[in-house]
Amino acid sequence: MKFYCSKAMLQHAVQAVQKAIATKTPLPILTGIYLSAANNRLELQTTDYDMAISCSIEANIEQPGKAVVSGRFFQELVRRLPGETVEISSNQEDSTLRISCNSSNFNLLCFPYEEFPVIEKIQTSTNQLTLKDNVLRDIIKKTVFACATDESRPIFTGGLFEAENDSIKMVGTNTHRLALKQDIIAPVELPAKMIIPAKLLNELARSLSSDVPVDVNIYWEKGHVAFEFDDIYLKSRLIEGSFPDYNRVIPAKFDTVVFFDTHAFLDAAERVSLMAKDGDYNIIKFRFEQDMITLSSNNPDVGKASETVAATMQGPGLEIAFNAKYVTDILKNLGSDKATLSLNNPLSPACIRPADSEKYTYVITPVRTS
Amino acid sequence: MKFYCSKAMLQHAVQAVQKAIATKTPLPILTGIYLSAANNRLELQTTDYDMAISCSIEANIEQPGKAVVSGRFFQELVRRLPGETVEISSNQEDSTLRISCNSSNFNLLCFPYEEFPVIEKIQTSTNQLTLKDNVLRDIIKKTVFACATDESRPIFTGGLFEAENDSIKMVGTNTHRLALKQDIIAPVELPAKMIIPAKLLNELARSLSSDVPVDVNIYWEKGHVAFEFDDIYLKSRLIEGSFPDYNRVIPAKFDTVVFFDTHAFLDAAERVSLMAKDGDYNIIKFRFEQDMITLSSNNPDVGKASETVAATMQGPGLEIAFNAKYVTDILKNLGSDKATLSLNNPLSPACIRPADSEKYTYVITPVRTS
Repeated sequence: MKFYCSKAMLQHAVQAVQKAIATKTPLPILTGIYLSAANNRLELQTTDYDMAISCSIEANIEQPGKAVVSGRFFQELVRRLPGETVEISSNQEDSTLRISCNSSNFNLLCFPYEEFPVIEKIQTSTNQLTLKDNVLRDIIKKTVFACATDESRPIFTGGLFEAENDSIKMVGTNTHRLALKQDIIAPVELPAKMIIPAKLLNELARSLSSDVPVDVNIYWEKGHVAFEFDDIYLKSRLIEGSFPDYNRVIPAKFDTVVFFDTHAFLDAAERVSLMAKDGDYNIIKFRFEQDMITLSSNNPDVGKASETVAATMQGPGLEIAFNAKYVTDILKNLGSDKATLSLNNPLSPACIRPADSEKYTYVITPVRTS
Repeated sequence: MKFYCSKAMLQHAVQAVQKAIATKTPLPILTGIYLSAANNRLELQTTDYDMAISCSIEANIEQPGKAVVSGRFFQELVRRLPGETVEISSNQEDSTLRISCNSSNFNLLCFPYEEFPVIEKIQTSTNQLTLKDNVLRDIIKKTVFACATDESRPIFTGGLFEAENDSIKMVGTNTHRLALKQDIIAPVELPAKMIIPAKLLNELARSLSSDVPVDVNIYWEKGHVAFEFDDIYLKSRLIEGSFPDYNRVIPAKFDTVVFFDTHAFLDAAERVSLMAKDGDYNIIKFRFEQDMITLSSNNPDVGKASETVAATMQGPGLEIAFNAKYVTDILKNLGSDKATLSLNNPLSPACIRPADSEKYTYVITPVRTS
């Protein structure tokens, strides 16, 4: 193998695949980056078996070939290379990959590339749909934070993705709070329903950062999903199991609706939660009155906090307690300056929405206080 | 106690004293910030017994008084307060400090302020000298990184500070490398010689960041030193013991002198050290020839690296090995685009200096390789 490529492009490719480099693994080859040079393209691949990423860039190939080198060192090294054009060649004799740039020369030991589990792309002509990357990023970012981080119930460590007719939905929940984001798309041929690991969704949202909207092709088969966009192919296992019916979680009607400024309420909640953080449950109390909300917290070891925020209200006032983090999480992701909080009573789920949209719903279970 | 002050000034003061808030301590009061309000000044103090910091700011005092509150919470809280003016008052009845700003109210539990070990300022009319802050910062930054981090020989965890006549010197060493920086100052009355903990020096350098040079008054007594500048008073214990004679470490003459570009050499050393880092000793080999330096490293588990850098040389060529970190550390701190490296043979200490100054000397012991 021998080829030349732009250092900037190579760095982009390494950046794109680095998230799936395995760190803790009994299989050393999974700590590597797989390079394949052919047909004037250089392809990089990584996999930790949960997720696999491929990125393909232009390269001037003098001799096609394959190699696997330490992901950690290759990554560091590419980042620090001087110059603009990198020359890479493999030396069969001593099993090394030679990386040269200006007066720098590196010889990295290779893993046997035949042992690398190369991505098997999903072959399907029916199980696919195409979204704009900004639409996909938006539904991910507005729901993935609500997923469970604890692995005891795996199903909640993923986001439910549904597409049917001209509607897509993404749902994240840890059973104490639930985020549902919907959007309208071009009608899909076949409905899709799958639970995608939150780790993959986070990585995907990070990669989908183009300035100009691009198409993302989504392919799925039993147990796997793949996302294809720009020069990237990202494949992941799906989470098995059946997701609970989220429609049953969202209350049909509310007695009280409060309107408030998202940022003022967020800032107050973050301040008041300073006192709550050290407590066992990070609880803030909210008192809703005619024209204001009073937030308060009490930590017997540290002190007390209270703050008022202007609001308008329809329906009877009430006092209710929530986990502060569950409130601040949604306000940070709301994407709207004005919000509504809909409530029934201190023990039933409440609902936070942007004031200007019905397509984003966040349900939060209150905390019972004495 | 009751006073009003600017939020920005209060934040500045908290920032200034936060470094001496004790974290691991059997004495809970040392995790606190001491507040003392009197004569239109608010003074904040912290101490972890190694170091004590005081910062005094303007405040509108309605009622003088004292209090000690949790450093961690007070710090977080001041950072997040809304508005511009903060109202702080103590409530004797429930032993709390009330902090109010706009519609935010916090009540922090107080520690008994009588128990706080208030700073005893050093009283002396002779043991003192005055430096410009930029001069002090410069001699610290150019030497403190060379101090030992391991506590087994405490004397090397501090920087030696010497002042005599119109000369000041600071020396840092871990016995494998030594940095000496000298400067010229207004003649001092009494000579000074003390070993100041590196932790304090780092904190001091961080605090000495004024745009316009200000005076720093230095006071010392047996076992202690204090630095006074702006609204800050910083006191520290000194390290006991006698510092070795650093003049004996600096070779008197050299056979070979190499001239090179600091940044080109630093970049090359950092790249080549990528391969060395995982090895036991982080060793780079340097081969000095007529018009170039070849840097190389070899890590049997990862691979090899080599790079050449242009240089000019007086004297015979040679090959020598150094700990890569000891080379890159000095090049990062050199403060000059051109550097010289002076050598005798592969086993005797070498010396790195800025090409344009005799007042900064760095001695580095080579590593013996087979």
